[in-house]
Amino acid sequence: MPPPTDFETYELGDLPLAGGVTLPDATLAYKTHGTLNTDGSNAVLFPTWFSAYHSDNEWALGEGKALDDYFVIMPNQLGNGLSSSPSNTPAPHGGADFPALSMRDQVTAQHRLVTEHFGLERLALVVGSSMGAGQTWQWAVSHPEMVERAAPIVGSPKTSEHNKVFLASLRAALITDQTFAGGRYDPDKPPVDGLRAFARVYAGWGFSQAFYWQQAYRNLGFSTLEEFLTGFWEAFFLDDRDPNNLLTMVEAWNNADVGQSPGFDGDTEAALRSIRCPVLDLPCRTDLYFPPEDEQHWSQFVPHGQVQVIPSIYGHFAGLGADPDAVAFIDRALRDLLRN
Amino acid sequence: MPPPTDFETYELGDLPLAGGVTLPDATLAYKTHGTLNTDGSNAVLFPTWFSAYHSDNEWALGEGKALDDYFVIMPNQLGNGLSSSPSNTPAPHGGADFPALSMRDQVTAQHRLVTEHFGLERLALVVGSSMGAGQTWQWAVSHPEMVERAAPIVGSPKTSEHNKVFLASLRAALITDQTFAGGRYDPDKPPVDGLRAFARVYAGWGFSQAFYWQQAYRNLGFSTLEEFLTGFWEAFFLDDRDPNNLLTMVEAWNNADVGQSPGFDGDTEAALRSIRCPVLDLPCRTDLYFPPEDEQHWSQFVPHGQVQVIPSIYGHFAGLGADPDAVAFIDRALRDLLRN
Repeated sequence: MPPPTDFETYELGDLPLAGGVTLPDATLAYKTHGTLNTDGSNAVLFPTWFSAYHSDNEWALGEGKALDDYFVIMPNQLGNGLSSSPSNTPAPHGGADFPALSMRDQVTAQHRLVTEHFGLERLALVVGSSMGAGQTWQWAVSHPEMVERAAPIVGSPKTSEHNKVFLASLRAALITDQTFAGGRYDPDKPPVDGLRAFARVYAGWGFSQAFYWQQAYRNLGFSTLEEFLTGFWEAFFLDDRDPNNLLTMVEAWNNADVGQSPGFDGDTEAALRSIRCPVLDLPCRTDLYFPPEDEQHWSQFVPHGQVQVIPSIYGHFAGLGADPDAVAFIDRALRDLLRN
Repeated sequence: MPPPTDFETYELGDLPLAGGVTLPDATLAYKTHGTLNTDGSNAVLFPTWFSAYHSDNEWALGEGKALDDYFVIMPNQLGNGLSSSPSNTPAPHGGADFPALSMRDQVTAQHRLVTEHFGLERLALVVGSSMGAGQTWQWAVSHPEMVERAAPIVGSPKTSEHNKVFLASLRAALITDQTFAGGRYDPDKPPVDGLRAFARVYAGWGFSQAFYWQQAYRNLGFSTLEEFLTGFWEAFFLDDRDPNNLLTMVEAWNNADVGQSPGFDGDTEAALRSIRCPVLDLPCRTDLYFPPEDEQHWSQFVPHGQVQVIPSIYGHFAGLGADPDAVAFIDRALRDLLRN
């Protein structure tokens, strides 16, 4: 599947990044759904997950769904290949020379989109899955004046050490392919073996033990394990994902921590205590890298924090639209959150 | 750490393997502890786990421990570098040409050691961790006339699909290193990047999320995550592990299934129903690739089967001696089993 082309692009110009580098001519690709009402009270921001596009969020939309009457803005995260990324940035910042990104950089770019371009002063909801949840947490900390509700799904305000080990294994699998050449590969001859290994590693983590035990990949249209590993996982990462893009996002994920926001000096708990809005944290019971225990821990510091555990065997992908029951569970949770 | 040298070698001569190949001049490296009593009633067989040596089982021994009065035979599994393996077998069966192994082959070789060399007619206990558990299960199915008790620890009678995905990710990480060259690398220039990636992938699976959350690697003598990843994981796999040996063991693990034993035609449940001895199955609550749910499932088919879940945050390594509390738990369980 080629990347989607149904998006608009906001020209950010110079984008100063938290790491110190200013990215010139930065762009943010986004798509909107629905209509903004006259008082601007129905805007929802829905950032993307790791290596996903805006289209990968659309499972949460549809007639009768919680977000149906909202104006939903789906910004593609920087680094995903549609917004400014290693793969589409010219020298001296392209490819292996692309600067490191953080969750704060994503929020900086998105804040400019929603304020400068859409003229919004508040967001009825920020919601996102996985790295989109990381961006959601960062929004709640960085812009308490704007965010009225936050719903991080299968993600965390701070990447745990175990999660970092998972990410280190993804990175190692990819860069072990000598074709990667420190990121200076020929774009026409990407490190295919490394991408395949990346997909294999991810396959073990993305869904749960119970998912595989029950062969629930059959529900996704694959009749054997081998078909699922190739038709789902390899297809996802080998079709059009750029390795430098992937590693840029891996690093941003790895370093995520709302405690690194200005004024908190690395104190994640203090950053969480500063959040004003209700936060409905939605981990999945069987998520292997964002386990619900972590979110139970972090949520205790959020003044209006609540955790609802998605009861699914789909693991992390329960939060990415793969499980119809989980989609319904999340939709009910968002509906309740938006009612208040 | 170089491999241990404190072992004896049993010359098997021709070893016909389940896959059809006969391995000539095969050898089985083993170590014994304790003294065989005159009626031969106190023999325990304790095979090794993936990439481990006999010395890696010695956590289960010691004064006052359940196995203290027993004659404990620790055979190194074929493929581990001490017994016949790709790394020590001459052409035409060495290196990348080493034949595929199965759990049955391990049992065939070990059965010859215990009957021909030690003249044993029965084993008071077969016990082993992880792949050693796989061999334990295979013993109980292949030699019900000999095995009086079996205690598989953090292992399974059949490798689950999720576990196969984990193994596929290990394999992919290693062979992505082009230096691996289909197994025809120069032994003096092994695929170091691939081994490092292998170690990184393993690190995420070997211990649990809670282990990393609590930074329990400090109990193992490592003060930071990075130290643990290099000082524990990379040291384990990069010091002296041969890549072809690792992949030979990965394949044997991948294909483990007692249902493939002669007479059962792939019917794992029937194979388990044929077991006569008490089987105490000891999975760990937080094991990420041999989850306790799988063992609860398989145990129901074993006539005298019982499951006791090790309550540890050490994940798979709780069954490999890494957690003193788990060692004590396992020791009590073995003591109770041996009492009957």
